[in-house]
Amino acid sequence: TGPGATAQGSPTLAVIPGDGIGPEVTAEALKVLEVASPVTFAPTRYDLGAERYLATGEVLPDSVLEEVRGHDAILLGAVGGKPNDPDLPPGILERGLLLRLRFELDHYVNLRPSRLYPGTASPLADHVLERGDIDFVVVREGTEGPYTGNGGALRVGTPAEIATEVSVNTAYGVERVVRDAFARASRRPRKKVTLVHKTNVLVNAGSLWWRVFEAVAAEHPDVTTDYMHVDAAMIFLATDPARFDVIVTDNLFGDIVTDLAAAITGGIGLAASGNVNPDRTAPSMFEPVHGSAPDIAGQQKADPTAAILSAALLLDHLGHPGAAAAIEAAVLADLAERTTGTTRRTSEVGDAIAARL
Amino acid sequence: TGPGATAQGSPTLAVIPGDGIGPEVTAEALKVLEVASPVTFAPTRYDLGAERYLATGEVLPDSVLEEVRGHDAILLGAVGGKPNDPDLPPGILERGLLLRLRFELDHYVNLRPSRLYPGTASPLADHVLERGDIDFVVVREGTEGPYTGNGGALRVGTPAEIATEVSVNTAYGVERVVRDAFARASRRPRKKVTLVHKTNVLVNAGSLWWRVFEAVAAEHPDVTTDYMHVDAAMIFLATDPARFDVIVTDNLFGDIVTDLAAAITGGIGLAASGNVNPDRTAPSMFEPVHGSAPDIAGQQKADPTAAILSAALLLDHLGHPGAAAAIEAAVLADLAERTTGTTRRTSEVGDAIAARL
Ligand SMILES: CC(C)[C@H](C(=O)O)[C@@H](O)C(=O)O
Ligand SMILES: CC(C)[C@H](C(=O)O)[C@@H](O)C(=O)O
Repeated sequence: TGPGATAQGSPTLAVIPGDGIGPEVTAEALKVLEVASPVTFAPTRYDLGAERYLATGEVLPDSVLEEVRGHDAILLGAVGGKPNDPDLPPGILERGLLLRLRFELDHYVNLRPSRLYPGTASPLADHVLERGDIDFVVVREGTEGPYTGNGGALRVGTPAEIATEVSVNTAYGVERVVRDAFARASRRPRKKVTLVHKTNVLVNAGSLWWRVFEAVAAEHPDVTTDYMHVDAAMIFLATDPARFDVIVTDNLFGDIVTDLAAAITGGIGLAASGNVNPDRTAPSMFEPVHGSAPDIAGQQKADPTAAILSAALLLDHLGHPGAAAAIEAAVLADLAERTTGTTRRTSEVGDAIAARL
Repeated sequence: TGPGATAQGSPTLAVIPGDGIGPEVTAEALKVLEVASPVTFAPTRYDLGAERYLATGEVLPDSVLEEVRGHDAILLGAVGGKPNDPDLPPGILERGLLLRLRFELDHYVNLRPSRLYPGTASPLADHVLERGDIDFVVVREGTEGPYTGNGGALRVGTPAEIATEVSVNTAYGVERVVRDAFARASRRPRKKVTLVHKTNVLVNAGSLWWRVFEAVAAEHPDVTTDYMHVDAAMIFLATDPARFDVIVTDNLFGDIVTDLAAAITGGIGLAASGNVNPDRTAPSMFEPVHGSAPDIAGQQKADPTAAILSAALLLDHLGHPGAAAAIEAAVLADLAERTTGTTRRTSEVGDAIAARL
């Protein structure tokens, strides 16, 4: 079983389908979860997102947050309204809902596996792909960095305006996520952790990350380590991604690195993520990396694979690694048979994957 | 002629060959400059970098800075010592030399053209490259953002340590670089500027960048605009880089975006850059994007192309666009004839390019 699994019996699941294609892909994730899981989930649906905000002005009422907190895990589809909707100020849902959940529920490990499944198209050339299999996981810090909402602005709208953003990094916050990365690495065959930062410019935060990384590494003689500036990491992700095993990095670098990682492994349509609270003081949240894609919403055009793989991460987190692996294998088999040109409806993809379980 | 060119006659050139492969590639850039330039440069060599620091403890003495400031332009090779040299604290040269020059000489436009020359190998697959020619330029802000050295640390080395990095953004600083990007775009055939930021999370800085961008755009009805979060930009750079024309972004995002841009256009071995002071209140500095590569130093193995293309940017900046274009054409012709497997010495590449002029 997974690390520190607690939920047995009928685990409770808060489901936040969200906006756009969110409800469609979430339905398929639940469908697969039901077939694959050794336990029966008790799901409660929470309507949060752009639609609710536009209708009521509410983003995440405190009472809803407390209800959600009472569950064993959270499954989220996608949130976000139409681009440039004047009634939807930029950042309001991201900060008020997604980031608020990550911070309030102490999701300090933002887990993003990147694997290029056989048969999946990559934007990388064959000579790059021939270097080896792409199979790494990014452990992105989820509760600090420039995501803390620190910073501010003065004299807004005047030629003398100044705006700041503060990246906050604590030994407490860095150590726990670095420890998680090493623990994951020592359970993987290659046992390697790469720290990605920008220590030559961000010297305060960089020095803290570097010292913590070195100290934790010393406790893990079985794990190989590597360091890369974030700009160099871009180059290696594009030219030799097979070299990575576990990447640990801060919140903002992790955001950037994981979208590139998703792109090279077939796109965000396939990328799953877990916002994990490894100490289990609050429920972890699982969501596809993609957004709400309002332009194709309600048309059964969205690929539910990322949502389904997120459900697998959820099962693994709740102590059912066998069921998680079964979902991954079913997805793998489905991907291998996908042929370019043919398109299946969202529900057909979910059916096909469920049928393999 | 280029914008606001002033230097005529014998422009003075401060040459900082630097460490590792720096001197070798700089020699070739000077060789090509001499052949291509309609004016004769008066070069003065400044020994700065890891070697000087290790020998004397000096990074950039004030007196040297003032001498350098007196020149019409600066040509830099690369600085940086052996990795993990205990006598060379991380960041000391980057901050004390490179960044100090950028800040002291007000290089607010960090200019990085990204073009995939015909015949050059890209890590991207054919189906991506077939979408169109990759030919864009990144206008990276060079004097603000998280590069300002603001921030600090408390209780260093204890479990209660906190380290911060502050991104500083001013209307003054943002407006001038955004204006530069629009001016460049309106001189290019496609006339398009993409702002890359993270407005949904970095709301203070993001709002400033967005408002300035919109205001400057309103003055340029001939220029098309686009906005992209930095994470989404990763995806588009990997899957549809032909869509970009001019990208304007902050100092840190620009650092990250330009290394990926270099990777997809054949690697940092080919990427040139200019640290430009468009107001000409101080000399601009031109340098290859690559580092000092100490492992191959002194062996005539380094590719001087990026340094040579940086010399072309220098000529363009000093008001000799014809000579700059001639260098670029010579490089293009040379690249088209490069065959994988054969390696030429650094000086042979310089000779070959010079011979075409
Ligand atoms: C929507 C946004 C706030 C979020 C982030 O920046 O973390 C997203 O890009 C992600 O990666 O989950
Ligand atoms: C060496 C480093 C300080 C520098 C930067 O971060 O700007 C480099 O990566 C670059 O892109 O020129």
